[in-house]
Amino acid sequence: MRILLVNPNSTMSMTETIRASAQRVVLAQTVLVARTVAGSPASIEGHADEARAVPGLLDTIRDAEAEGAQATVIACFDDPGLGAAREVARGPVLGICQAGVQVATTIAARFSIVTTLPRSVPIIEDLVDAYGATRQCRRVRSVNLPVLALEEDPSEAFARLRNEIRRSAEEDGAEAVLLGCAGMAEMCLALQAETGIPVIDGVTAAVKLAEAMVGGGFATAKAGSYAFPRQKTAPAHCSA
Amino acid sequence: MRILLVNPNSTMSMTETIRASAQRVVLAQTVLVARTVAGSPASIEGHADEARAVPGLLDTIRDAEAEGAQATVIACFDDPGLGAAREVARGPVLGICQAGVQVATTIAARFSIVTTLPRSVPIIEDLVDAYGATRQCRRVRSVNLPVLALEEDPSEAFARLRNEIRRSAEEDGAEAVLLGCAGMAEMCLALQAETGIPVIDGVTAAVKLAEAMVGGGFATAKAGSYAFPRQKTAPAHCSA
Amino acid sequence: MRILLVNPNSTMSMTETIRASAQRVVLAQTVLVARTVAGSPASIEGHADEARAVPGLLDTIRDAEAEGAQATVIACFDDPGLGAAREVARGPVLGICQAGVQVATTIAARFSIVTTLPRSVPIIEDLVDAYGATRQCRRVRSVNLPVLALEEDPSEAFARLRNEIRRSAEEDGAEAVLLGCAGMAEMCLALQAETGIPVIDGVTAAVKLAEAMVGGGFATAKAGSYAFPRQKTAPAHCSA
Amino acid sequence: MRILLVNPNSTMSMTETIRASAQRVVLAQTVLVARTVAGSPASIEGHADEARAVPGLLDTIRDAEAEGAQATVIACFDDPGLGAAREVARGPVLGICQAGVQVATTIAARFSIVTTLPRSVPIIEDLVDAYGATRQCRRVRSVNLPVLALEEDPSEAFARLRNEIRRSAEEDGAEAVLLGCAGMAEMCLALQAETGIPVIDGVTAAVKLAEAMVGGGFATAKAGSYAFPRQKTAPAHCSA
Amino acid sequence: MRILLVNPNSTMSMTETIRASAQRVVLAQTVLVARTVAGSPASIEGHADEARAVPGLLDTIRDAEAEGAQATVIACFDDPGLGAAREVARGPVLGICQAGVQVATTIAARFSIVTTLPRSVPIIEDLVDAYGATRQCRRVRSVNLPVLALEEDPSEAFARLRNEIRRSAEEDGAEAVLLGCAGMAEMCLALQAETGIPVIDGVTAAVKLAEAMVGGGFATAKAGSYAFPRQKTAPAHCSA
Amino acid sequence: MRILLVNPNSTMSMTETIRASAQRVVLAQTVLVARTVAGSPASIEGHADEARAVPGLLDTIRDAEAEGAQATVIACFDDPGLGAAREVARGPVLGICQAGVQVATTIAARFSIVTTLPRSVPIIEDLVDAYGATRQCRRVRSVNLPVLALEEDPSEAFARLRNEIRRSAEEDGAEAVLLGCAGMAEMCLALQAETGIPVIDGVTAAVKLAEAMVGGGFATAKAGSYAFPRQKTAPAHCSA
Repeated sequence: MRILLVNPNSTMSMTETIRASAQRVVLAQTVLVARTVAGSPASIEGHADEARAVPGLLDTIRDAEAEGAQATVIACFDDPGLGAAREVARGPVLGICQAGVQVATTIAARFSIVTTLPRSVPIIEDLVDAYGATRQCRRVRSVNLPVLALEEDPSEAFARLRNEIRRSAEEDGAEAVLLGCAGMAEMCLALQAETGIPVIDGVTAAVKLAEAMVGGGFATAKAGSYAFPRQKTAPAHCSA
Repeated sequence: MRILLVNPNSTMSMTETIRASAQRVVLAQTVLVARTVAGSPASIEGHADEARAVPGLLDTIRDAEAEGAQATVIACFDDPGLGAAREVARGPVLGICQAGVQVATTIAARFSIVTTLPRSVPIIEDLVDAYGATRQCRRVRSVNLPVLALEEDPSEAFARLRNEIRRSAEEDGAEAVLLGCAGMAEMCLALQAETGIPVIDGVTAAVKLAEAMVGGGFATAKAGSYAFPRQKTAPAHCSA
Repeated sequence: MRILLVNPNSTMSMTETIRASAQRVVLAQTVLVARTVAGSPASIEGHADEARAVPGLLDTIRDAEAEGAQATVIACFDDPGLGAAREVARGPVLGICQAGVQVATTIAARFSIVTTLPRSVPIIEDLVDAYGATRQCRRVRSVNLPVLALEEDPSEAFARLRNEIRRSAEEDGAEAVLLGCAGMAEMCLALQAETGIPVIDGVTAAVKLAEAMVGGGFATAKAGSYAFPRQKTAPAHCSA
Repeated sequence: MRILLVNPNSTMSMTETIRASAQRVVLAQTVLVARTVAGSPASIEGHADEARAVPGLLDTIRDAEAEGAQATVIACFDDPGLGAAREVARGPVLGICQAGVQVATTIAARFSIVTTLPRSVPIIEDLVDAYGATRQCRRVRSVNLPVLALEEDPSEAFARLRNEIRRSAEEDGAEAVLLGCAGMAEMCLALQAETGIPVIDGVTAAVKLAEAMVGGGFATAKAGSYAFPRQKTAPAHCSA
Repeated sequence: MRILLVNPNSTMSMTETIRASAQRVVLAQTVLVARTVAGSPASIEGHADEARAVPGLLDTIRDAEAEGAQATVIACFDDPGLGAAREVARGPVLGICQAGVQVATTIAARFSIVTTLPRSVPIIEDLVDAYGATRQCRRVRSVNLPVLALEEDPSEAFARLRNEIRRSAEEDGAEAVLLGCAGMAEMCLALQAETGIPVIDGVTAAVKLAEAMVGGGFATAKAGSYAFPRQKTAPAHCSA
Repeated sequence: MRILLVNPNSTMSMTETIRASAQRVVLAQTVLVARTVAGSPASIEGHADEARAVPGLLDTIRDAEAEGAQATVIACFDDPGLGAAREVARGPVLGICQAGVQVATTIAARFSIVTTLPRSVPIIEDLVDAYGATRQCRRVRSVNLPVLALEEDPSEAFARLRNEIRRSAEEDGAEAVLLGCAGMAEMCLALQAETGIPVIDGVTAAVKLAEAMVGGGFATAKAGSYAFPRQKTAPAHCSA
């Protein structure tokens, strides 16, 4: 089974970290193809960063499917371009926020999410609402660090994450905590070990669900709103 | 990997049908343990049937975990006893409605559900609402046949299912259809082939997600509302 | 008028406390029939306890109706088996959570609920959501005591309840407080007197609404999803 | 027990019809005080009619409480002035829409409402939504007759109501039907008898719940947003 | 363009303050017609005050349209009589709460509201919910001052408003703050200047949207539930 | 006042049509700057088309603000890149769907939307839900024509639009109809004239609201999640 794991930002070291985390949990028969989106922002922190990343992301998915990828995991917690990706893909497309929320609502009645910057909080809240888990999600918290600080100062990031995870349990009544950034994947096990609280990494969730989707024969429905984009002839007076 | 597949009703032939469907999609390393709940109703058609089935279901899960089961799939579309099962289990517990809804919302923007009797329609609508997919679920339809008719008159059942699946696409704008009864599992591929519409079997969905959960290291959160039931000393004047 | 007041747990002293509270408010013409569910857990603290109690509860209701009961009150705040009870009953069935919420939304624009253990908080939140009162219910609080502590250490329980009721008004802006356990019924008046805040006991609410339903000629609708469970012939290969 | 039954419109014959219907179901100890709001529109068909009726309605409630009324029923299905009435009243105030919805969600999993004019449909839908029963209420239908036609051409009104009640069951899957106008009260039993479907009259519902509220000791919470209106000194430059 | 700006309460000095604030932002071609509702309460603090104000408000709107008003702004944050006003008016009717919420959701992902008395908090929360902005509105706060204190002790009111606006940003994560009373209009710019947080005055919002509606040719839809109230012949036995 | 009217697709003739419609309603002092997004798809029909259009859209907005634009209207009914645009812009950004919904909920209690292709229906439903108007929006209909057919076969498009608008009133109970594509702007007045039903063009709505926002001094809140995107130094190993 061949699964595309695509990091929408252009930071290759982050792609490698994510890939390594995912590699630990895939089936023996799974080939993980990790890709970085060329030309996208160094990190995804807001709608505009997402928007700059998505066209390259769509090309990456199209190319990877042409080379045999059977499923796609978009490794950014904002699930950038998820709907668009489902239009261009034939196989199932998993967002790590949606997949993480599905796992969270399967193992816990109430959970919290911990993300990087405060500006991502409303974006994630809106995603959680669109995925129908507002009642189950107690709170979206932030550690007030930019995404790349996870790589640049991992011990500070770890300490803040640990602190917010503990507060999620104590103050929010969260029974599990979902990590709100793909870059946190490698810290997941240590955070769970130190806090004693179930911690969910969305990358792990999405990669395992991607295998499940392929194994179950589930592919994107192509007859409705996720149909392939229509090829349009440029009009005579097209500006491009 | 050892997965319990439990049929909450007492019809052993249905357990066997469900097991056979599931067996086709599991990983080579998965051992499926299929169980029928002794003493429960012959089929689950409403809340009271559910209630009669759940105590035996909980015992079955507890016993199966003691014998090494790492995950549980409850093979009835009403997801009977799902919360209770998560309290008694250590591993993840998958309901075929919740799992089916998760798959449906991953592959389609809008879907419909087709179940057996009209009396199950509000029950399933309420589940879909609790799982946060009311906006995505266009309609819950019924073929107006009891559960056991799926076994007793499969050609009539198949014809009615095919008809409702087509109407789901034409009238509801459904992009995929979720089968609303575990007993429909074996008809899934043929229904998809005949209608050309993606048809999702909740048993397949749940079994594959169960494997994913175990593979990803996700177990039920045991520190909050899914904690094991407290052992209570019977009071002096207990009636039992 | 004959009303069944059924305590789903097996603690007979609690049944008696509940009965005594209810007796104070019933009409002269009402005969309260109090029943304890034999063989159920000593207290209902979570979904699994509920599940263990419901089959006996259904039998109790069926028997009581056969003996002339015209309405049923399920005296546990989780409203265990409410849908199932409506399927087996001909008369109206009142849950003390649903009835309490109906009274609360009639007398106050915003209210809070105070229950026993933290593990019941998500269960009650989900009920309140299903009953459509999420906007009106400010918060579900817990006194962090098991159900039977209400009997075993009533002064400690009273002190904690008084404290949470006051916090409901001060911190939540609650205009009334709904007691989140049948076992708190006898403390209701004293709590209201000490705090000066309207305190609603769900047992009182449900018993009075049960009388109203009977008096108004309202019985459970038996033609739809609350129809009596179908009698099913056990299949040839039934496991039971 | 003294209960105010107030008809917000100025049609005295309708007040009498409503009173007679209510009288049939009250307890022996209940004294029904029926009042018509002087100076209000002849019927309530829309927000503006409501607005014209409410000031007189509030005066009527204040006066009736001064004369000993312990609870109030507002006998118009738009529940006009319900919040305002709760501010001026000490006793509980029941709206027939809210009460009817409470009864409907107690006896049926799904119900429909049948009202008079199409223009009232969105108003009632919004009320049902505010009362948290949108999921349970399948549809709000209208017979396309003005309110007073219920008196002027009762056989035509009856025929149309019967027709819409039947369609509620057949097309909507409604398990019970709630009458959406106080003026339909006297037809309730005959409609139920002819259709075989449980039909709920909101006046009956509200009057019985009013008795229950008084019997249970439940009064309007007066410390929060339902506190009595503040007496305000007219400012120096007041226009009035 | 002629726009009616109607203050539902009877405090003429407040009308003048509101008019002066609005005058600063209207187009050169706009004629603002400010009106006070004669005979209404001195301030609107709750549902009963609203109810007392609305009949006069409707008359004011009808008269103003007869004199050429093309749009109406109801200058009270409870949006009293908004639906009724749309029935009696031909031109568009803007409520300052609805208009303020529309502006807030256009310029910010999350906002809070600051109103006068705590008793208005649930009323405003319910409006925000009806306008579909519950997710975007972080919190409705109060400065715990009556409406007329804005005029009587403006420095105290200003200090409290400034404090709550700052807390909205710090504690709620609000990105903008909506003032929850028409009487706060003149403090808006100073509050924004002192706090550095975008502060929205609903009167400004509504007046500018009213101009936009007229300019865009948008008038109230008169064929449905906002149709003019039917003229009804008083019945023979009418009480009035 | 300088307002950017940007057509996200690359069809310049459509930009001109939209501009001409908008020009008819702007204030004398408004300078409309119409722009086509170079390099984007010829029409926006789905998420992938949106994604391809947004980066160029953001550049267009940034450039236009540098040249003095005080507000932006995105003239595509999917509101593509609305959040991202608010991050890069200082002035207010209006989407024609959000603006159209705001106008619709101001003039009508219930409305329907008519768009081009069926694949856009779920996208628009999700937007309406995010804007909080699901209850007010009766139905999203499609004329089953691609976007560019509005230009290529306008009489067929007009006939189908007229038909769906009439059905919106008759079948849905819509009191007004919102056109679900910027390319329908020029047909709006004729459709309203022929059907007698209020028809709302989102371009008109958004342009007029943009003027109102500027006139009222309302700009995008830049301190929270709509802050300008952070400038990020490309990491050493960046792939781009």
